[in-house]
Amino acid sequence: MMKKYVAEFIGTFTLVFFGCGTAVVAGAQVGVLGIAFAFGFALIGMAYGIGPISGCHINPAVSLAVFIADRMNAKDLVGYILSQCAGAIVAAGILAMLVKGQLAGYDIGSGGLGQNGWGQGYLGAYGLSSAILFELIATFLFCVVILGSTQEGAPSQIAGLAIGITLVVIHIFGIQITGVSVNPARSLGPALFAGTKAIAQVWLFLIVPSIGGALAGVLFRSKVLEK
Amino acid sequence: MMKKYVAEFIGTFTLVFFGCGTAVVAGAQVGVLGIAFAFGFALIGMAYGIGPISGCHINPAVSLAVFIADRMNAKDLVGYILSQCAGAIVAAGILAMLVKGQLAGYDIGSGGLGQNGWGQGYLGAYGLSSAILFELIATFLFCVVILGSTQEGAPSQIAGLAIGITLVVIHIFGIQITGVSVNPARSLGPALFAGTKAIAQVWLFLIVPSIGGALAGVLFRSKVLEK
Amino acid sequence: MMKKYVAEFIGTFTLVFFGCGTAVVAGAQVGVLGIAFAFGFALIGMAYGIGPISGCHINPAVSLAVFIADRMNAKDLVGYILSQCAGAIVAAGILAMLVKGQLAGYDIGSGGLGQNGWGQGYLGAYGLSSAILFELIATFLFCVVILGSTQEGAPSQIAGLAIGITLVVIHIFGIQITGVSVNPARSLGPALFAGTKAIAQVWLFLIVPSIGGALAGVLFRSKVLEK
Amino acid sequence: MMKKYVAEFIGTFTLVFFGCGTAVVAGAQVGVLGIAFAFGFALIGMAYGIGPISGCHINPAVSLAVFIADRMNAKDLVGYILSQCAGAIVAAGILAMLVKGQLAGYDIGSGGLGQNGWGQGYLGAYGLSSAILFELIATFLFCVVILGSTQEGAPSQIAGLAIGITLVVIHIFGIQITGVSVNPARSLGPALFAGTKAIAQVWLFLIVPSIGGALAGVLFRSKVLEK
Repeated sequence: MMKKYVAEFIGTFTLVFFGCGTAVVAGAQVGVLGIAFAFGFALIGMAYGIGPISGCHINPAVSLAVFIADRMNAKDLVGYILSQCAGAIVAAGILAMLVKGQLAGYDIGSGGLGQNGWGQGYLGAYGLSSAILFELIATFLFCVVILGSTQEGAPSQIAGLAIGITLVVIHIFGIQITGVSVNPARSLGPALFAGTKAIAQVWLFLIVPSIGGALAGVLFRSKVLEK
Repeated sequence: MMKKYVAEFIGTFTLVFFGCGTAVVAGAQVGVLGIAFAFGFALIGMAYGIGPISGCHINPAVSLAVFIADRMNAKDLVGYILSQCAGAIVAAGILAMLVKGQLAGYDIGSGGLGQNGWGQGYLGAYGLSSAILFELIATFLFCVVILGSTQEGAPSQIAGLAIGITLVVIHIFGIQITGVSVNPARSLGPALFAGTKAIAQVWLFLIVPSIGGALAGVLFRSKVLEK
Repeated sequence: MMKKYVAEFIGTFTLVFFGCGTAVVAGAQVGVLGIAFAFGFALIGMAYGIGPISGCHINPAVSLAVFIADRMNAKDLVGYILSQCAGAIVAAGILAMLVKGQLAGYDIGSGGLGQNGWGQGYLGAYGLSSAILFELIATFLFCVVILGSTQEGAPSQIAGLAIGITLVVIHIFGIQITGVSVNPARSLGPALFAGTKAIAQVWLFLIVPSIGGALAGVLFRSKVLEK
Repeated sequence: MMKKYVAEFIGTFTLVFFGCGTAVVAGAQVGVLGIAFAFGFALIGMAYGIGPISGCHINPAVSLAVFIADRMNAKDLVGYILSQCAGAIVAAGILAMLVKGQLAGYDIGSGGLGQNGWGQGYLGAYGLSSAILFELIATFLFCVVILGSTQEGAPSQIAGLAIGITLVVIHIFGIQITGVSVNPARSLGPALFAGTKAIAQVWLFLIVPSIGGALAGVLFRSKVLEK
């Protein structure tokens, strides 16, 4: 059982380290498109690297969706979420070490650590309602892809590719709006190191993606989208 | 049977929401290449997310091709097309909500909602004959990939990837010409919210892709490209 | 048997229409990276769309490699090559129709139709020896991927993805050098419509990729890289 | 047995020729994102092209990880590493031929041949500790994906895609830091031709990725991430 938790820790570490790391280290070079590929491709790598052990949720909203769809027990739900949050926090901490002092005059507080947000001063300056709408719909659809592509009778060997590719398109679309969470752990990690504004806004990214994932779970529990 | 229609609704919603959404929200950041990936990758996600239920047509021209190739009955053809159009319209409506009022001074009428078009004032300013030629050939070839890769004996587990990747290249090539429809539902949704010019031009995107899809259906019905 | 030739015609048409079309219509918007994805992704689409019928060579150098590796008979070799050249020529002709008169003042002779070349005035201005070296090595390695990934015992369902992805990287690397041929038919089509300089240089792209393919064929015929 | 070594030679040649070649020939056109795709996609091509013969390590750090994970014998470890280094060196030499004299005033010493490095004057000017941290973590995670996705019971047909996609994201993230090695052979080849600074810094890329790979090997040998 511990194997699963180690796997989820490593997987979420990788997602945050590579995804947020790209935003911080290479954002000016690769832009929104490059950051989008970084998040989605990190997920693909881990889907096959640790997927055979834990299923590679690396996202509390996904674990919640899987739990509600009745494909996971409550004990594992808790263990997965704790491992995911730990992995994200450690990744953000190491990323802070990597860039602090190396980027001339780099100030994580203002320069960012890939934290999510919204409103004036955050990328496209979208408001709270747009942020909620986007995160809700995107997480719901993301979890529809996950639950649909891993159901019995689906070509589940390809699921990891389809899921990661979906995460790419969600980022291409939504980075301007919220930086894209769809994943409470991914938001929590950087927020802890990125200063007061990120902390003040992190609630949205803990709550809204969880609701989106839960709705997808309900849809599949009710067998509407299952064979 | 309703499951299939729900699936097609969700799938077409996703294609329009993520694809057109990227054009509107992130077009300035990600360019033609990013928009192309958004449309194609949204299709890949849904091919595996809802594909096990409905086959993931999410496109009336594709459903017509499948029907003519004798792989689908008339009742489902109607049900699919209605679900697809509904999904596209709802997606365009929610997208309008998302951007209106959030983007300073954003005017959907002139700024666009990812609607298709041609001629002076539309991207590369290609004329009507180029628009028809492109949409006809691109939809035909798109449906050849779909019908060929999902035929018996083909490695159909990979079909969703191949089909979505084909949609990427069609967009890379053709966004300058028509914004790329190859899908009447995808064109109808945004046109309803994007003002009089989009409405005046939407006929082409309802008719020409349907002809392209029908021609591919005829080719496969006649077994020219089937094993 | 005619099915195969129809398939190769459609496949090569698609490669040239989408690949060269992207260079002409969208090159300024998507750059080298976008053109590279267009060529490689067009190949992936066709690998699954027509692959079940003809194997999707859509390239005389590939057919030659397959023939020398003793996986194809001489009659088919001739039929494939003729179909491929016909598809490429028709694609270039239709592409010329699409852009001529639509792009204000567009002159195919000087503006190009995606033709290959080298030397002063051609992209990176690489000389003849660099052009030969690049085309020879790239076609050889391309055919190694093709022959290796489709051999017995290989996961041949994935071969189409691997081969198309290889074509992407070859274009990312080599567009600056020759525009990337690695395919005599792809070079022949646009050259016929693009004026005297393209015609004068097309010999290299008929000969060198054929040698590269032949060398890969010899390597596999001698079982050096076969199981 | 020689087949394996020939395969590793060709595979590593391809990785360095296409990857470093893109940096040199097309870096200004395709940027960090294009170079990242070049390295990762070259790996995907070879994973299916030569993978059936040698498993396509084309990286001494990977061979070390596989050896420590007890999936390879010591004799092959030595043979693989020698073949990989030879392939990388020959690729760098031919690449030098390709660009020298063709790029007006191109000076490999200062202009580079895709060599790795760090510190003032190297891309993002990250310091030694960042370079070590990045290479250590990235190689470790890269080898986790490799060992995890190729273990018994995993969908190993897809492993080559997942591994190459992981190499893409590692490059998107890390090119600014070290140019990305995670592969001693890939670093050794260009360093030999690129002048004294590259030679003076190559030790890091021989040692640190090897440690990262070894750690992943230990993790899998101890069955922590195996089924």
